Amino acid sequence: MTKFELTILGTSSALPTSQRYPTAHILNVHERFFLIDCGEGTQVQLRRFHLRFSKINQIFISHLHGDHYFGLIGLLSTFILLNRQTDLHIFSHSILPELLKPQLDYIGADLTYKIIWHPLNFKKPQLLFEDEAVEVSSFPLKHRVPCCGFLFTEKHKELNLDKEMIDFHQVPIRWLHQIKQGDDFCKEDGTVIPNKALTLPPAKRRSYAFCTDTLFEPEVAKWIHDVDLLYHEATYDNLLEKRAVETMHSTAGQAATMANLACAKKLIIGHYSARYKDLEILLNQATQIFPNTELAMEGAVFPVSTSKDN
Amino acid sequence: MTKFELTILGTSSALPTSQRYPTAHILNVHERFFLIDCGEGTQVQLRRFHLRFSKINQIFISHLHGDHYFGLIGLLSTFILLNRQTDLHIFSHSILPELLKPQLDYIGADLTYKIIWHPLNFKKPQLLFEDEAVEVSSFPLKHRVPCCGFLFTEKHKELNLDKEMIDFHQVPIRWLHQIKQGDDFCKEDGTVIPNKALTLPPAKRRSYAFCTDTLFEPEVAKWIHDVDLLYHEATYDNLLEKRAVETMHSTAGQAATMANLACAKKLIIGHYSARYKDLEILLNQATQIFPNTELAMEGAVFPVSTSKDN
Repeated sequence: MTKFELTILGTSSALPTSQRYPTAHILNVHERFFLIDCGEGTQVQLRRFHLRFSKINQIFISHLHGDHYFGLIGLLSTFILLNRQTDLHIFSHSILPELLKPQLDYIGADLTYKIIWHPLNFKKPQLLFEDEAVEVSSFPLKHRVPCCGFLFTEKHKELNLDKEMIDFHQVPIRWLHQIKQGDDFCKEDGTVIPNKALTLPPAKRRSYAFCTDTLFEPEVAKWIHDVDLLYHEATYDNLLEKRAVETMHSTAGQAATMANLACAKKLIIGHYSARYKDLEILLNQATQIFPNTELAMEGAVFPVSTSKDN
Repeated sequence: MTKFELTILGTSSALPTSQRYPTAHILNVHERFFLIDCGEGTQVQLRRFHLRFSKINQIFISHLHGDHYFGLIGLLSTFILLNRQTDLHIFSHSILPELLKPQLDYIGADLTYKIIWHPLNFKKPQLLFEDEAVEVSSFPLKHRVPCCGFLFTEKHKELNLDKEMIDFHQVPIRWLHQIKQGDDFCKEDGTVIPNKALTLPPAKRRSYAFCTDTLFEPEVAKWIHDVDLLYHEATYDNLLEKRAVETMHSTAGQAATMANLACAKKLIIGHYSARYKDLEILLNQATQIFPNTELAMEGAVFPVSTSKDN
């Protein structure tokens, strides 16, 4: 099956630790590499996990706290050293290009590629990108600064041909494309073979939702309903819910509750406070509410599947 | 003896690798922590090697290529999370505060401490900082953009008291401070005991020179003459001298030649091109010219000593 796979590059919250990197995810959808957030050191992590820089054409920055974007200038700079020529699309708060402008101007003469900035809408969901394979949309989260989550969904897929029936009805090759699109087959003698008799249902569309830095906000569930893989921040354990509310973050239990509300198939938690050396407490609290939960870890790879058993 | 000790945080040149970090050094002089350059990920390295953020009050940025300063904004931001109150002095190209201004303004309301910017002089040597223990000066290097090296030297030290002779002459305690400064001792009966008879020579002043990103430039030797520990970049091996000249970098052999010209006691090379998985070729070429050479490695600690055997 074509790839739909998440690689975690960083799992820490704002304070750095010696073992964890700040937030960055790479989502591989059919060999398109979407970079989601870009904390300091993201480019080192890309190297470490053998992910090719040149495959990244879209970068999504959820919000402008440093642990989610301070690695961007380094990556943009390295693209120059790698002689990148392809346009790069960055989806972020509209102020980000202004924040980086003096630094980009300073290296401007050397810029080998074009950066195309796309402002996010922090008030309502928005379609950000689509091509023949995938669509990416954003939806508002609730944090101390404007913040978005992102939803990546495979496009509607073609019907699968039922090869036995195609052979049985001796369907010429030139018809196959139309039949995959849903057309009936009309024989030369005028007999019509209905599409249903020739095809099998398409593979399900897979989806990944990224919910970082947010107060627990039940309303978010409606935007990510039925998602296959949900990443939700879990900065604190349940005992620190008050602290979570003060800082506009979530607890492990709240992340798991969101997975339930959204009918997600699988949950990954991350964005751990530096106070947790051992993450078992967060995992235990989440699995009590939503059993199919795993911890995000640097370098971990999660294939996105429509099955509950992934 | 009081500490004068270098810790290497990063050894790579501009292109990131999975194993090496970009340039950053911490020099501990009598528990003052001087940060020299601040490539991306420096704050993670500080954590990794258990170096206390709060001891850093001076940061020296040699030049404005990203691999020497992209970690600065993250560090400045983390100082806020750590509720830093102490002034922070940054010595850099005068344009650096402008490059970071929009980002600093964006987090400005939260800034808990004062940043004091000091412009470097790229034309001639300049005293940057001094206190009772150490003085720091800069000197020009030759790179594609304005670039400085830095020299850290212990201040002139007091004479050591010769305890046996102090006892023999029954010198009162109130005299000791002046004798350490070089005064003779005048007894109550008018007899003068010359200073030389009461003191031993002071410990030698120790020094460290940081020479990053530069063409091999023999003239630099005069500014760092007799240095105890010399760090000199060695981006390339000797066979790539043409490439070194084109990019205004140095070879391992040139770094070693500089150590000889400057009569350095010990040489450390670093800033390795990403092409070198194995660094032995660089070490071999350097030691052929200057035997007391070591490779900079992430986390390596080099005590600065006036002895050749360090």
